[in-house]
Amino acid sequence: MLKINDHRLHQDIEALSQIGKTPEGGVSRLAMSEADVEGREWFRQQVIKEGFEFKQDGAGNISAVLRSKNPDAKTLLIGSHLDSVPNGGNYDGPLGVLTALEILRTVRDAGLDLPVNLEAISFTDEEGTILGLFGSKAAAGLLTREQLQQTRSGVEVLEQGMARLGINIDSVLDSKRNADKLIAYLELHIEQGARLERSGYNIGVVTSIVGVRAFWLNFSGFASHAGTTPMLERKDALWGASEFALRAKDLIIEKFLPGVMNCGIIHAYPAAFNIIPDKVELSLEFRHGTEEQLDEMQTALFDLAHEIVNKYGLGLTIESAGKYAAAPMANHIIKTIEQSAEQLGLSHTPLMSFAGHDPQSMSKIIPAGMLFVPSLNGVSHNPKEYTNPQDIANGANVLLNTVLTIVNGVTA
Amino acid sequence: MLKINDHRLHQDIEALSQIGKTPEGGVSRLAMSEADVEGREWFRQQVIKEGFEFKQDGAGNISAVLRSKNPDAKTLLIGSHLDSVPNGGNYDGPLGVLTALEILRTVRDAGLDLPVNLEAISFTDEEGTILGLFGSKAAAGLLTREQLQQTRSGVEVLEQGMARLGINIDSVLDSKRNADKLIAYLELHIEQGARLERSGYNIGVVTSIVGVRAFWLNFSGFASHAGTTPMLERKDALWGASEFALRAKDLIIEKFLPGVMNCGIIHAYPAAFNIIPDKVELSLEFRHGTEEQLDEMQTALFDLAHEIVNKYGLGLTIESAGKYAAAPMANHIIKTIEQSAEQLGLSHTPLMSFAGHDPQSMSKIIPAGMLFVPSLNGVSHNPKEYTNPQDIANGANVLLNTVLTIVNGVTA
Repeated sequence: MLKINDHRLHQDIEALSQIGKTPEGGVSRLAMSEADVEGREWFRQQVIKEGFEFKQDGAGNISAVLRSKNPDAKTLLIGSHLDSVPNGGNYDGPLGVLTALEILRTVRDAGLDLPVNLEAISFTDEEGTILGLFGSKAAAGLLTREQLQQTRSGVEVLEQGMARLGINIDSVLDSKRNADKLIAYLELHIEQGARLERSGYNIGVVTSIVGVRAFWLNFSGFASHAGTTPMLERKDALWGASEFALRAKDLIIEKFLPGVMNCGIIHAYPAAFNIIPDKVELSLEFRHGTEEQLDEMQTALFDLAHEIVNKYGLGLTIESAGKYAAAPMANHIIKTIEQSAEQLGLSHTPLMSFAGHDPQSMSKIIPAGMLFVPSLNGVSHNPKEYTNPQDIANGANVLLNTVLTIVNGVTA
Repeated sequence: MLKINDHRLHQDIEALSQIGKTPEGGVSRLAMSEADVEGREWFRQQVIKEGFEFKQDGAGNISAVLRSKNPDAKTLLIGSHLDSVPNGGNYDGPLGVLTALEILRTVRDAGLDLPVNLEAISFTDEEGTILGLFGSKAAAGLLTREQLQQTRSGVEVLEQGMARLGINIDSVLDSKRNADKLIAYLELHIEQGARLERSGYNIGVVTSIVGVRAFWLNFSGFASHAGTTPMLERKDALWGASEFALRAKDLIIEKFLPGVMNCGIIHAYPAAFNIIPDKVELSLEFRHGTEEQLDEMQTALFDLAHEIVNKYGLGLTIESAGKYAAAPMANHIIKTIEQSAEQLGLSHTPLMSFAGHDPQSMSKIIPAGMLFVPSLNGVSHNPKEYTNPQDIANGANVLLNTVLTIVNGVTA
């Protein structure tokens, strides 16, 4: 069975770790920064050195392409991202891009003539320095001009960044890939959590990238003197908000695991020691693997909030604060990854991804699949992020095997 | 049985309501303001007109004195305050001062020769425009130069106000009354709550002015990604704070009524939708009638907080944010007020005062007693504040009867 060259893969990981390196041993390669440009240039040189075709699209996504001899061949995309969060780790993103590049080298070295083009791609700004999943959203045609005018970074950072890459808003909006020419998108990534490490599985087969729904819950009561108002005559908005925060947590644990919820922001008014709060704003965010599960969670959480405000005689309004649709991975790719792991004698378990990743964009236009390898202590977005060489080799070989199986399916 | 002249009392209430009158029908006679000076001058003229002795002490406390023929007689103080909150009502404070003045008139008109001096006193700034209980604290010797340099109003408002009254910081600090020359302090006040109205009692006999203790509870957890951190592996500081806010409320209701507690301020950090809070600051204030009850509440609340943080693996620090000692009223005066009500055929019930009042200062140096009359709908600090004439007459007659009983005790 064909295997990747793990020595070569680790040399690449090590080389890239030097670019944007921080004193703590992590990296700061924020999307479109000078360090990101340096990382991109390093990648381009590897591509050229290996004799692959180098491409950059209008969104700054960069690729190495190993072309099939068939001029009408479709393309199988394999990739991840080279950008990082500030003082992030050396594996979140690069591992997927460099493994994709190693797969191209392995296929080329084996002299295989595939009926499809293999493209190792690095998507721009997965981490959201400018706008999360910037490059994959552009490639999937999901970005609008309005979104680009309201980026998290502000216009100036975006404009300066685009100038560094030689792109502009028009080119970004014009960079949607033609789905008819693509077979699928595959990505290897570190788990960024401790589920694999703790359960002892080699490979996490991602079933879905969770959807996220966010809301503001506004509880209203009646502000009165915290001395002279008897306890049983209060309409304390914080009683409602605190009971909600607590029971929502219990509800998710009892009925919706592995779904998650968070109340991360809370404001109480008028905010005095001796005045009963008449208004509390509470943020609510929850995540699960399918839109159906998200619908059920939303109904249960809203029912709970209404039950609580009725109990205390409070008012309640709920405002949406954003959502990401759940992105199920393609079933046939999930199965192919599982079979590939089994052929290599590796254990595997289905996992949801609770963080966002580029396959969530690509799944909107083509079948997508994703696999996780273990993260030491589950640490990520941190210089201490680490995945051991054997786990990396395991993941890379499962991905190679998956690529070859999918490609064989195209031939058949 | 001797009774006050309620027509005369209501004329005074009506006349004073015109001074500092607001468009809504309330009053703004903030302590040491021009309107307060006008109210004081109106009072002085009534005192002179009635032929009583007028006094102003170094803290701006003003009094009418009906002297005994005995030159060595001690003094029984009866009073309240003439200042108001901004756009406050016509009863909170004035009712007690004007009733005291009416009691002096009633005693004089009846030709009684008492063995004690009766002094109807209005204390400066009970409401705390400058510093809460300013006048009674000064009279009880409870003010320090440092406190006067750090007033809520700032130095300029204080200086301008003192100049209007003809007092200064040295005179304020020199205005402690000689407790050896005082028998007791008595005050009639509106309830500022709805307990009497709802229960149908005529008179509330104040057993204690509650003590207040305030703290900051600082819960600490671990900030991590609200997507990738499984629910059962979180250290969410808001779980601790919300469970505390909720269960502290239940604890007080189950074990410490009529004590009260309030969590009025809450700050969570880092305050993002998708980050688990690692730090929550929660304000805690609780009130009860005795220091022993406050000690028990504090122990139970702190135990609860520690139990909760242990359950969630959180950290906790607790900082004091101020306290007022509980001020029990003198038992013999409580009994005298109760007997006086019974002699008048009026129903009465013991009540704690959950707001601060001047008897809390005076109780530190002499026996003090206080009675409440009903407030319509419990409304106070509002132009809609109202107590009906019959309830006022009831309270005034109970106070008169109490004064005469105490005075008779001195003779005996």
